[in-house]
Amino acid sequence: MSTRIGILGYGNLGKGVELAVKAAPDMELVAVFTRRDPSSLKIATEGVPVVSVKDVADYKDKIDVMILCGGSATDLPVQTPEYAKLFNVVDSFDTHARIPEHFANVDASAKESGKIAVISCGWDPGMFSLARVYSNAILPDGNDYTFWGKGVSQGHSDAIRRIKGVKNAKQYTIPVESALEAVRNGENPELTTRQKHTRECFVVLEDGADAAAVEKEIKEMPNYFADYDTTVHFISEEELLKNHSGMAHGGFVFRSGKTGADKEHNHIIEYSLKLDSNPEFTTSVLVAVARAAKRMNDEGLKGCKTILDIPPAYLSDKSGEELRAHLL
Amino acid sequence: MSTRIGILGYGNLGKGVELAVKAAPDMELVAVFTRRDPSSLKIATEGVPVVSVKDVADYKDKIDVMILCGGSATDLPVQTPEYAKLFNVVDSFDTHARIPEHFANVDASAKESGKIAVISCGWDPGMFSLARVYSNAILPDGNDYTFWGKGVSQGHSDAIRRIKGVKNAKQYTIPVESALEAVRNGENPELTTRQKHTRECFVVLEDGADAAAVEKEIKEMPNYFADYDTTVHFISEEELLKNHSGMAHGGFVFRSGKTGADKEHNHIIEYSLKLDSNPEFTTSVLVAVARAAKRMNDEGLKGCKTILDIPPAYLSDKSGEELRAHLL
Repeated sequence: MSTRIGILGYGNLGKGVELAVKAAPDMELVAVFTRRDPSSLKIATEGVPVVSVKDVADYKDKIDVMILCGGSATDLPVQTPEYAKLFNVVDSFDTHARIPEHFANVDASAKESGKIAVISCGWDPGMFSLARVYSNAILPDGNDYTFWGKGVSQGHSDAIRRIKGVKNAKQYTIPVESALEAVRNGENPELTTRQKHTRECFVVLEDGADAAAVEKEIKEMPNYFADYDTTVHFISEEELLKNHSGMAHGGFVFRSGKTGADKEHNHIIEYSLKLDSNPEFTTSVLVAVARAAKRMNDEGLKGCKTILDIPPAYLSDKSGEELRAHLL
Repeated sequence: MSTRIGILGYGNLGKGVELAVKAAPDMELVAVFTRRDPSSLKIATEGVPVVSVKDVADYKDKIDVMILCGGSATDLPVQTPEYAKLFNVVDSFDTHARIPEHFANVDASAKESGKIAVISCGWDPGMFSLARVYSNAILPDGNDYTFWGKGVSQGHSDAIRRIKGVKNAKQYTIPVESALEAVRNGENPELTTRQKHTRECFVVLEDGADAAAVEKEIKEMPNYFADYDTTVHFISEEELLKNHSGMAHGGFVFRSGKTGADKEHNHIIEYSLKLDSNPEFTTSVLVAVARAAKRMNDEGLKGCKTILDIPPAYLSDKSGEELRAHLL
């Protein structure tokens, strides 16, 4: 029987989940839930209803897993505990510092309802977390390195847009190639913030804005830019939309660890992603996790989980026999 | 309480397990078991007994997990089902084609005894299998690529040593850089055997052997060399021992997959290992898996498992809280 999926929220993530469900042979999209007027929303899948979130409880027994496609800042901290009362849920909560708090809230709710709620699924947190946990368990004596990019950082782009005189902006986070190479070569470098990433900004000014003042304000912005080598390009809005609307992203996770009687052997584990579409990759992870969430709940498990708690085979639509014969 | 480990077999793998147990804060080595005369064996850890395999049953309640360090050809097919009758066990069985059969034998034995037996742990099968399963689950529409090396292939080195006139030999499997780059660039190449790896052989001849005849026999050997671009170097035994005794290895697993309404977005997942010591990395995996095996058995699970069945967090000595706060 297909896993019956609901989507809550129809932005970039919701649309990506819709595509990933369509690509999965064992999944079926039941409905898309929206806070907007449902009649105002046209989705890509024929024959699937768009439903107001007010009516979500009507779907309690029609949906196996609800995939929550809201944002981490304000949506998910409220939505995930709330909808875990009715459904198995999966979210992509990515504010690392607030994960313990989010976990506790969701866990209480899901334990009470007897549902499974998997939080913080995507690529970081998500696949990058897996890379870190596996490699730390295998090589306890070593160093971790995570690099992001090249890709657009939404938070940094937003920070530039808040500057007076800025009409629009995109900011790319770019890993420093020489730092990647030093890690890859087993040099175990100690890297400052500046040595790991550079930041490149494409900025559209308002008419009459002072470019030099904007550039100075960007480069000196604490936390966001002051600790980095930052490049600022002023471009037209047309050029921004034409050349900087992509959603590519990626990054690298390394563990460089030592073994041996005299710690004489070095080992490098590298995991990297090069993604044409950040939201579509994230939602591909969410959908694989939804498969596992149903299976775990069918086995009687409940409460909040992360991808670290899920047996890898549960993410796959293949049987144990198939996996052992072909992928092990 | 520490996880109490036994080692069965004291070759490269057994020695590697001993080092990895020492590096783990939550593990304790109880005994090393050998088929040899125990008095002939000196191990690296002070105060740990070397015991004849004949007396292994005496340790039934003193060991949480027995790590089986025999070979895949003849040792493990017998040992793993046998010792799973007494202990939770972990092995590194790596004959891919025979995994389903080995699984069935071990599963029957472990289910009867109520123990956990985790087979085929290492890096391939093992970490590379994880990379394949995760990335296939996330990107169902795509291509898999596995490359091995640069590293010594024991099977190919043995095949050369069986040639008349050859005194000693080492064979390196080397991935073709241009093939790696094509995969990394998302070109989704169809690669022949010859296009993926080259083979480089270092050969010591017997006195009076015919170098040209040996080289021809190597290069034309079916399955092993005929389908590859193979280079043969004749060197002295002294040079072989000096420059080709290392146990470095490694490799790359890629998934190149597509998403999007028109499959217009490509994503590359790359997992790679660069290992100074193949056996020490393999045994570092075995020891992390032993930790998980105990935990699963303590929870009442039994039977044969692979690393695909183990929640990643179980491999770590850190608590769920610590993992969520620091590595997720």
